[in-house]
Amino acid sequence: MVKIAVLGYGIVGSGVVDVIYKNSSVITNNAGCGIDVKYILDIRDFPDSAFKDKFVKDFGIIENDPEIKVVVETIGGTNPAYDFTKRALLAGKSVITSNKELVACHGAELIGIARERNLNYLFEASVGGGIPVLRPISQCLVANELDRVCGILNGTTNYILTRMIEGGLSFEKALCEAQEKGYAERNPEADIEGHDACRKICILAALAFGKHVYPEYVETEGITGVSLEDVRYAESDNKVIKLLGRAIRLDNGKLHVFVGPHLVEKETPLASVKDVFNAIVVHGNAIGEVMFYGRGAGKYPTASAVVADVIDAVKHLDARKYLNWEDAGREIIEDNGRFVSRVYIRAEGESVRSAVTSAFGEVKFIGEAGKNECAFITRCLPMSEINEKTKLLSEKCRVISKMKVL
Amino acid sequence: MVKIAVLGYGIVGSGVVDVIYKNSSVITNNAGCGIDVKYILDIRDFPDSAFKDKFVKDFGIIENDPEIKVVVETIGGTNPAYDFTKRALLAGKSVITSNKELVACHGAELIGIARERNLNYLFEASVGGGIPVLRPISQCLVANELDRVCGILNGTTNYILTRMIEGGLSFEKALCEAQEKGYAERNPEADIEGHDACRKICILAALAFGKHVYPEYVETEGITGVSLEDVRYAESDNKVIKLLGRAIRLDNGKLHVFVGPHLVEKETPLASVKDVFNAIVVHGNAIGEVMFYGRGAGKYPTASAVVADVIDAVKHLDARKYLNWEDAGREIIEDNGRFVSRVYIRAEGESVRSAVTSAFGEVKFIGEAGKNECAFITRCLPMSEINEKTKLLSEKCRVISKMKVL
Repeated sequence: MVKIAVLGYGIVGSGVVDVIYKNSSVITNNAGCGIDVKYILDIRDFPDSAFKDKFVKDFGIIENDPEIKVVVETIGGTNPAYDFTKRALLAGKSVITSNKELVACHGAELIGIARERNLNYLFEASVGGGIPVLRPISQCLVANELDRVCGILNGTTNYILTRMIEGGLSFEKALCEAQEKGYAERNPEADIEGHDACRKICILAALAFGKHVYPEYVETEGITGVSLEDVRYAESDNKVIKLLGRAIRLDNGKLHVFVGPHLVEKETPLASVKDVFNAIVVHGNAIGEVMFYGRGAGKYPTASAVVADVIDAVKHLDARKYLNWEDAGREIIEDNGRFVSRVYIRAEGESVRSAVTSAFGEVKFIGEAGKNECAFITRCLPMSEINEKTKLLSEKCRVISKMKVL
Repeated sequence: MVKIAVLGYGIVGSGVVDVIYKNSSVITNNAGCGIDVKYILDIRDFPDSAFKDKFVKDFGIIENDPEIKVVVETIGGTNPAYDFTKRALLAGKSVITSNKELVACHGAELIGIARERNLNYLFEASVGGGIPVLRPISQCLVANELDRVCGILNGTTNYILTRMIEGGLSFEKALCEAQEKGYAERNPEADIEGHDACRKICILAALAFGKHVYPEYVETEGITGVSLEDVRYAESDNKVIKLLGRAIRLDNGKLHVFVGPHLVEKETPLASVKDVFNAIVVHGNAIGEVMFYGRGAGKYPTASAVVADVIDAVKHLDARKYLNWEDAGREIIEDNGRFVSRVYIRAEGESVRSAVTSAFGEVKFIGEAGKNECAFITRCLPMSEINEKTKLLSEKCRVISKMKVL
């Protein structure tokens, strides 16, 4: 019997405790021994909980208990999660987390501390909720030179976009609905502005390419600027709008990493990812494209990934050796202006089509021909050129929307 | 430097050798040491190969060389692959294979021999080509009670069905095209009759549920009976036809395992799997549904999975402990008549609709109303009842097609 502690009894933490007891027979079978939760740390009281005797408020009790081999951190955010994680590792305990913010901001350091002490710091649940991603990338695709990762990484925004596309709801109405259903928080900024997706693409880039990418280096755009008109123009060209996180390794060793709404061809696997589902596409030189799909959030899907990591840590109390993740600075990020893409643009103004043609040359106009409004898709060009031409265009017309085409 | 031997220099075997040398720097980095191919066993001569000095024809040379720690078996079939695999394991070498036939027929025994000798017998490439499946199921989903596995497991038949659906080709024409493109063999029976998919669902069932399922226990139907008319009727109900392998664990511990063409709702992730791509959907009680998607065959995708297993075996020369796979007999298979499903049926004859209604009661007729032909979807009923009612119907009409609806 291995004793563990769970820090934070919120949605994920309580899911972890539930799964450990509900699925104890399959877990014992797979771990080779039983797993028992000795402590649950939370600042709140849970007097009616079946686990009420396990609650503690002082992290020191867990830190100083040599019986605790594995600590699960499901507090979220960086404070106090960062301090507790570091102290747990320094006290000789492996740490499992679902905390993408902490991994994206301090992953390189925490993995380093764990490795020095021959412990594990595992975070499968930090990207894609319950979807297996960390191990498939770092164990199953190890024979490949990986060069691209791309994903629908945020369930809230994917739900909102799905409702706009299939239900014809405005962004505001779809957001309200997501909040009513518990898919979006009361303050939805981290989701709708793309910050959550940004943290996840940082973690994926580090896993795939071995270098830590800090969120502040990543050009990030959310979905607040996506309108029903854009959805309809995309539809007219057999495309849907998806918020994607993308990381691309260049031949010079640098990376393009960004987050933003994209037009995606219908009837592709990524376009078929709807509602709160997530999907991650990885490209390697031997395998080609693989995609991992499932529920990217939620109590039990996330707990599924956390508990799988707990089982791995219990089976291998010594450090697993599969994470190659070095610290790195801004120098690994390539200038975004060099990224080459087709781009969707919507503009309005007098003689808008001739203004478009004079700024961009040949383009593909899409949708119904409006008198003073049009939408088009550019040729494949470096973003610096696209930006220059857009500036030219905006001298004559109002540029309403601009999104990359996948 | 770890020395390995590759048995069989066909498509997959030569891909493995290529990938090992082409991606040697990333492989060395991930394995923690270099990997070198010392021998290649093949009955043919390859005088122009860059590796001509490595070829041997006598397996005894490999078997008796203590320097060889890992043997890759990419011969295919059971003879001589079974004999060579057993001898390699008995000689203290781990074995990696892409050979689904061997794993489906002798997996339990070979895993047992490997475990007894603290060696590895790994076969990620045997299902889904390069798609990570084995490790995700046996490591990442270990906190779940798994209850369903379902997949598009054969690229050849998926290509043929895609061409029938999107190109309007007849089965015969689509098969010819697949043969011309090298996606189908000259003798396509193993693919189009469902035997290949059957072996793969057997392996998946064993991985997910821990019991060996032998191919001869599995009701298997291929796609030779699927016509363009069926494709059109499916289309009229917003569905596509896919060849699926399915394994379902029941509360009594028994399994339903079968292979056959199914009607699948469009705009679902499985329906978006086209051409030679494969996808495997797994359902667990914590995670819900996850899907793994990618190239299910081909030289380099398959080599990607084989070499990932080689790296795992090189890093862990002792047996990995994650495969729980026991031998089992026919008693674990539940009577197929008890499986509950909606079914698509197409029939022709005089007054066919009233015959249908009198046999089946309320059904959903789909497609254009023909005078002497109709297609319909039944309610959800046990297959034994469906079969009885179909028999009733066939007393009055000709039943042309019958497929389960997913």
